Amino acid sequence: MRLSQFHLATVKEVPAEAELVSHKLMLRAGMIRKLAAGLYTWTPLGLRVLRKVEAVVREEMDRAGAIEMLMPTVQPRELWEETGRWEKFGGQLLKIADRKAQEFCYAPTAEEVITDFARQELKSYKQLPVNFYQIQTKFRDEIRPRFGVMRAREFLMKDAYSFHLGQDSLAQTYQAMYDAYGRIFTRLGLTFRAVQADTGAIGGNASHEFQVIAESGEDVIAFSDGSDYAANVEKAEALAPAVARPTPSASLSRIDTPKQKTIDEVSAFLKVPATQCVKTLIVKGREGLVALCLRGDHAFNEVKANKLPELPDDIVMASEEEIVAAIGAKPGSIGPVGLPESIPLIVDRSAAVLADFVCGGNTDDTHYTGANWERDARITRVEDIRQVVAGDPSPDGLGTLRIARGIEVGHVFQLGSKYAEAMDATVLDDQGKAQVMLMGCYGIGVSRIVAAAIEQRHDDAGILWPEPMAPWRVAVCMINPKGQAEVTAAAESLYSELAARGVEVVLDDRGLRPGAMFADMELIGIPHRVVVSERGVAAGTLEYRARDAAESRQVTVDELLRLFG
Amino acid sequence: MRLSQFHLATVKEVPAEAELVSHKLMLRAGMIRKLAAGLYTWTPLGLRVLRKVEAVVREEMDRAGAIEMLMPTVQPRELWEETGRWEKFGGQLLKIADRKAQEFCYAPTAEEVITDFARQELKSYKQLPVNFYQIQTKFRDEIRPRFGVMRAREFLMKDAYSFHLGQDSLAQTYQAMYDAYGRIFTRLGLTFRAVQADTGAIGGNASHEFQVIAESGEDVIAFSDGSDYAANVEKAEALAPAVARPTPSASLSRIDTPKQKTIDEVSAFLKVPATQCVKTLIVKGREGLVALCLRGDHAFNEVKANKLPELPDDIVMASEEEIVAAIGAKPGSIGPVGLPESIPLIVDRSAAVLADFVCGGNTDDTHYTGANWERDARITRVEDIRQVVAGDPSPDGLGTLRIARGIEVGHVFQLGSKYAEAMDATVLDDQGKAQVMLMGCYGIGVSRIVAAAIEQRHDDAGILWPEPMAPWRVAVCMINPKGQAEVTAAAESLYSELAARGVEVVLDDRGLRPGAMFADMELIGIPHRVVVSERGVAAGTLEYRARDAAESRQVTVDELLRLFG
Repeated sequence: MRLSQFHLATVKEVPAEAELVSHKLMLRAGMIRKLAAGLYTWTPLGLRVLRKVEAVVREEMDRAGAIEMLMPTVQPRELWEETGRWEKFGGQLLKIADRKAQEFCYAPTAEEVITDFARQELKSYKQLPVNFYQIQTKFRDEIRPRFGVMRAREFLMKDAYSFHLGQDSLAQTYQAMYDAYGRIFTRLGLTFRAVQADTGAIGGNASHEFQVIAESGEDVIAFSDGSDYAANVEKAEALAPAVARPTPSASLSRIDTPKQKTIDEVSAFLKVPATQCVKTLIVKGREGLVALCLRGDHAFNEVKANKLPELPDDIVMASEEEIVAAIGAKPGSIGPVGLPESIPLIVDRSAAVLADFVCGGNTDDTHYTGANWERDARITRVEDIRQVVAGDPSPDGLGTLRIARGIEVGHVFQLGSKYAEAMDATVLDDQGKAQVMLMGCYGIGVSRIVAAAIEQRHDDAGILWPEPMAPWRVAVCMINPKGQAEVTAAAESLYSELAARGVEVVLDDRGLRPGAMFADMELIGIPHRVVVSERGVAAGTLEYRARDAAESRQVTVDELLRLFG
Repeated sequence: MRLSQFHLATVKEVPAEAELVSHKLMLRAGMIRKLAAGLYTWTPLGLRVLRKVEAVVREEMDRAGAIEMLMPTVQPRELWEETGRWEKFGGQLLKIADRKAQEFCYAPTAEEVITDFARQELKSYKQLPVNFYQIQTKFRDEIRPRFGVMRAREFLMKDAYSFHLGQDSLAQTYQAMYDAYGRIFTRLGLTFRAVQADTGAIGGNASHEFQVIAESGEDVIAFSDGSDYAANVEKAEALAPAVARPTPSASLSRIDTPKQKTIDEVSAFLKVPATQCVKTLIVKGREGLVALCLRGDHAFNEVKANKLPELPDDIVMASEEEIVAAIGAKPGSIGPVGLPESIPLIVDRSAAVLADFVCGGNTDDTHYTGANWERDARITRVEDIRQVVAGDPSPDGLGTLRIARGIEVGHVFQLGSKYAEAMDATVLDDQGKAQVMLMGCYGIGVSRIVAAAIEQRHDDAGILWPEPMAPWRVAVCMINPKGQAEVTAAAESLYSELAARGVEVVLDDRGLRPGAMFADMELIGIPHRVVVSERGVAAGTLEYRARDAAESRQVTVDELLRLFG
């Protein structure tokens, strides 16, 4: 492609509303243009990237045995009524009435339509398993569309749906999709993790989210550096420390700690590390107050505490008045030693192995030092109620946990019989008996991947595309202000040579000054840049620079061509 | 592809509502499934064909220098208000309100959005000309959706829009698109014609429809067998006969023709061919009645007559009472001889060269024979007011006209300044002055092409795909009821050999009986079929049959492979 024949329109100013780096860079690079809230036109440049993602997704879905089809974007209300989602889906479902006042929605997903298709098309167990997919425009009427294509209303999604007789078959296709997703994100050159996701009643390994690691991600995940283990940080288990609790060696003494309330204050005041302190939270239980003890440096994990039988679904901290009335001290001085017997005392696994620790004195402005479990303070139960931290052992026993933020770009889910049952989608089994099918569903946010990749890979100058996503792999920049025939010929020849080798190359023949040209190529993230100039032609060299390299270097044409096989 | 791994679901019964052959065959072959009125799911089989059409369209658009992008399907009312089309587009525009009661439409076309894009992106004449296109889902809320994907509500369309400074540039891109369309339909293996279309005020060669020739087509077109000339039959010019009018040789005589009113009746009664008769229509003109004379065998063309200054926009025939009152005879006996002077007499070019003709006697139940223009009947003016017929000379002087029915699958149109003016889309010219851009638009009904191809190419057994559109080029049918290893091995080997040569091949390994297998392959239109059977393996031969061949023949593996280069 010659840039003079293309429509490249980078811009300097970016609308103030763009918060995310990817949103800003996509606007600046001229990959997208806003049409209305949450609606974006993909420019020629942006579409090149989107299509590359789409192609990789398609190839790997095909390789995994999924079969492509295409469902309408406009879907009748009646089908959505069958599953109850016409109402339950909520405001994100864009409802439409046609000229005859028939009601439809713009599909945000297609479980209903594919299940309707399946119950008509699939009659026998012999047709199973089968895995249908489509790459089709979707619409979710987000209440606050923002972040560009990261959370647009109209977006491009790959959605797949598999049908099975029996859980083994579902698990097998689920694993095939899990593996295919891994290949897709690996091929796209992205750093990602497959994260166990909440599956509600289904449980088990029945759902994974694929998260692209990026600082701006909305989700925080914990993952092992020694295995594939990854989980939402709220869900990652904190293993019990491998060490046993030391024998008490200090004696208990109450110390005045005037105005020292937080762990940091107490730790500094007493010159004891936070890891040797115990903090105590008093929450409202189903029946009276409950005390929760954690190591001073650990964060309380509400998701885990939610599963304690003593606590209600929504955990509420006890008020200062309630605490003073029950214990006789304010929240900053509460501790397990001498706590009223009526208050259950749940101790986190890591706090439970401490000896000779510091904790609140249950009298205002005092703390204990040299406190010990059992000897000085009872334990109702030891539980995992803290958030994991970087450096914790991985729950699968392999490696150490790291913490990172992630952007969800894919989701695999074992739906089980939910939709097939609601819509009566059955096949005859080998005994001739009608059986409800089991289903899996597997989504990838194709347009979202483009933004996620930028969040993961960018610098001050612009985008750093992984090669498989770049609009072009190589940019040949021609600097030829005098219009010299030799320079033009050298640039054209290099362009043709690269193209002939199957390298996706763009020739910047727009005649811009070098600074503007280089800035554009860096902004739009072309992985390799070659400069053809008068001086270079005279010297028989090209100036080559990889997008992520600190400096450019001089190479011959042959050396350059060898770089691209 | 192995059919056992694919979802092929042919059906025997076809819903009664399917009228067109393509609709019936697409349902029977299992290419589409109806979701709701005018909404179709493309099954895996159907999508394979759709994607092939899409790929050819994309390649030729790219080759012609058009640049692909992607616009949202959901478009804001405000833009459609700017051109007045929010109202003017009528009931086909599917209107949508989002959760905030903002109004949108599901785009049936994208002039507004692309013009909005252009007025933001294009600032200088240096950026012109440019031709943007997309292949994107569209929606038209047809009042009577029918004929399957031929007139669906949701459909796949390629729409392109070019921007220019100056008519020359527009004409050049228009020609490039015209040529690209020719390549597209040629590559797809379709018989088609580019037909001059009505352009309203713009006129000239500013619009062409691309019509796939098929008996079921809604449009009737006239085209030359000796050139590229083609026009809607209503618009094709009937040239003046090359022969001069003969000198009168018979004398005028009035003959009783009781109850003989139509040309056929009079011609039979008088034993004179219809080509030697003149028929006279009396219509209401802007001022009083007007007589229109045509050769007996020719059909009146209202579109052409509409352009006569004497006639109003909507032509209305005079009633029997009006005719009797003005002329003194009923419609079946009217003729040019002795017609009242107050009635203008417009004579078609072909009728004007007749001599010694038969015509109405202007007295009930009488006709004249031996009538002659000038001598017996005046002529106000000679005009082209008839429909062309097969055998007429082509208006461009090259070849003879043929008549056929067509299905519109493409349309190229010089829009001029219409949209750019309404939306104030200007660029600075080389003098730094703002100029309104000119636009062209170029549409192809991608999904409609699939149906049109079937209308053009089918037989009693099913579809006859042109090779470039076929879901697979070759079907290897394995007949192996005993499950013999040699037969399986031979089929697999042939399948692999063909695939290795880049031939798109499908292996029918479903284990059906031969009749059912062959019926399926014929129904879905695979161009080449090869049978691998026990007997064939023993004899070292394969049974090969082209889809359009009357019989199969025995070939060796080498002979077969040579067929596919």
